[in-house]
Amino acid sequence: GATEEDTSMPDPWQDEEYFDSYGTLQKLHLEMLADRSRTEAYRQVIISNSASLKDKVMMDLGCGTGIISLFCAQLAQPSMVYAVEASSMAEYTKKLVKQNNCEEVVSVLQGRAEEIELPGQVDVLVSEWMGNCLLFEFMVESVLLARDRWLKEGGVMWPSSAALTLVPCQADSYFSEKMHFWERPYGLDFTPLSLAQQEFFTKPKFSYLIDPTDCLSTPCDVIQLDMYTLQVKDLEEMHGHFQFWIDRSGTFHGFTAWFNVDFKSMEPGGTAVQLDTGPHSRPTHWKQTLFMSDRPVSVHEGDSISGSIVLHRNPVWRRHMTVSLHWNINSSSKDASSCQAGTKSFPMWR
Amino acid sequence: GATEEDTSMPDPWQDEEYFDSYGTLQKLHLEMLADRSRTEAYRQVIISNSASLKDKVMMDLGCGTGIISLFCAQLAQPSMVYAVEASSMAEYTKKLVKQNNCEEVVSVLQGRAEEIELPGQVDVLVSEWMGNCLLFEFMVESVLLARDRWLKEGGVMWPSSAALTLVPCQADSYFSEKMHFWERPYGLDFTPLSLAQQEFFTKPKFSYLIDPTDCLSTPCDVIQLDMYTLQVKDLEEMHGHFQFWIDRSGTFHGFTAWFNVDFKSMEPGGTAVQLDTGPHSRPTHWKQTLFMSDRPVSVHEGDSISGSIVLHRNPVWRRHMTVSLHWNINSSSKDASSCQAGTKSFPMWR
Ligand SMILES: [Ca+2]
Ligand SMILES: [Ca+2]
Repeated sequence: GATEEDTSMPDPWQDEEYFDSYGTLQKLHLEMLADRSRTEAYRQVIISNSASLKDKVMMDLGCGTGIISLFCAQLAQPSMVYAVEASSMAEYTKKLVKQNNCEEVVSVLQGRAEEIELPGQVDVLVSEWMGNCLLFEFMVESVLLARDRWLKEGGVMWPSSAALTLVPCQADSYFSEKMHFWERPYGLDFTPLSLAQQEFFTKPKFSYLIDPTDCLSTPCDVIQLDMYTLQVKDLEEMHGHFQFWIDRSGTFHGFTAWFNVDFKSMEPGGTAVQLDTGPHSRPTHWKQTLFMSDRPVSVHEGDSISGSIVLHRNPVWRRHMTVSLHWNINSSSKDASSCQAGTKSFPMWR
Repeated sequence: GATEEDTSMPDPWQDEEYFDSYGTLQKLHLEMLADRSRTEAYRQVIISNSASLKDKVMMDLGCGTGIISLFCAQLAQPSMVYAVEASSMAEYTKKLVKQNNCEEVVSVLQGRAEEIELPGQVDVLVSEWMGNCLLFEFMVESVLLARDRWLKEGGVMWPSSAALTLVPCQADSYFSEKMHFWERPYGLDFTPLSLAQQEFFTKPKFSYLIDPTDCLSTPCDVIQLDMYTLQVKDLEEMHGHFQFWIDRSGTFHGFTAWFNVDFKSMEPGGTAVQLDTGPHSRPTHWKQTLFMSDRPVSVHEGDSISGSIVLHRNPVWRRHMTVSLHWNINSSSKDASSCQAGTKSFPMWR
């Protein structure tokens, strides 16, 4: 068939041309805007801090369409919002700002965080920098660089903190779909392709939506970032530990990860706005990420799974990382208190 | 956010490396094998023609994993099956053939259809060459070249015939998702991005699964291919005409296309095996393709939609094509027998 063949065509630049086209760039931004959980969270932050934002100077880093800057201009009264965008999208952001009569408050600057020049420092740095498993693609580095150069002493970071959440999980239907079928399909022996069958599980599954009933335990934040104190060098290797108590018997197939971020309030006594991308919240465009172990293990209520996670930033390809998981399944059964260990590393490339 | 950023990264070869990797190539083949409708159709062809295949010489062009060749060797008694595969997959195909003890009957040849050399001509040429909208990626050209060079006078082509099917359709939820949201999202004016909003509809939507109740008429085969007489030059521009009678009132949003192929029987009085990828059959990995018009039109039972379709092969990028649709909506209402014309061209790139 033809479906598989484009990958072997010798003209990769065609895809590049295609994806970099005017409309496609915008389409990607429209798709993010259509993520209401994400966009409404930022809108809520502006609304619930509108009094405190009066006369403040703000920066919206990686502003895309400029939606957050427009919220600031229309729902609060900052003296100035610098909307910073590195891509050619900035050209259209300027048009959108004008179309919405915000050009006196919102100033669109095209450039990378490291390059832009402002007349002075800002009171608030807001950005939507999160990627899959929170850090993937490492836009957070630009945010930290902008913070260190342009945020006033005592200024506000939005998000203010962020966490990567993990849960041990079942993934029965995904596992069956990928593995059981291959035991002897059509009566033939496909074991020479077993490496490819394995490969279904060597990469994390992006865009996974875990059913809450497939969580074998209460999810835990395993890595937490304080956006005021986090340093670029900390990003090279982030470590987390976990101990999960299994609260329902089932099959352990691996771990599912997602993130949540907090926007602390500027108002005295105000509560933080939260954006959670987990299975108990409305799905976002990030969805969740599934890390499959190589071998399913039966687990029972009362068992525990302890271990660690390391996010190792790729030393060469700076937007990529490897997620390493190490775990012990501690059985609570009377006849044998056994312990099964597992370890697996998942490269995260697109 | 980070999700959109990989498209602007200046390292397209990374994706290339990624997709061309050993496991990914195989994974694509495994995913096609997992398409049971497709694979079982070919299996059924071999089973129902097993008597006639005895001592025949066969070619399986673009054999991938070699599944069709293995069916031939295990379910019939051909004297030889040449399994031809241009990609490096051929290396694993050889292992699969050996693993299934078929190496005396199945000979794997790595090479393009134009390049391979056989000791003689073949009685049967079987191939799974179909792509989106039947022709996309034009693997069919290789099949025609192989036929003209290697198929004996009076030999059998599988598929023997093929047809592109079209139906006028509703696509309310897809339309709303893409357009209604953008009328004034979050109270802001996004008209400067309207070109991008339009672009949602300038390309066909691949991997669309139309609900049968969204078909506004009985589907029709608009282009038919006889695999015995079709010529490579015919592929440059394929024309079809249609007249649909609307059998349910609704909103015309565009057309949905898919294909079906026939495998004529070699047995006296035998019936052809069919593979249909439309909405009334079990979904295949091809799914269907949606062509959205720019403007929805209300239609009523008794109205008709007549027009034409042209598949124009790209003169430079030989795997690509443009699908042009022209249509007239002829209203049957008493007060005004109106006619609304529409025309639109859709480039089909990946
Ligand atoms: Ca195909
Ligand atoms: Ca993002």
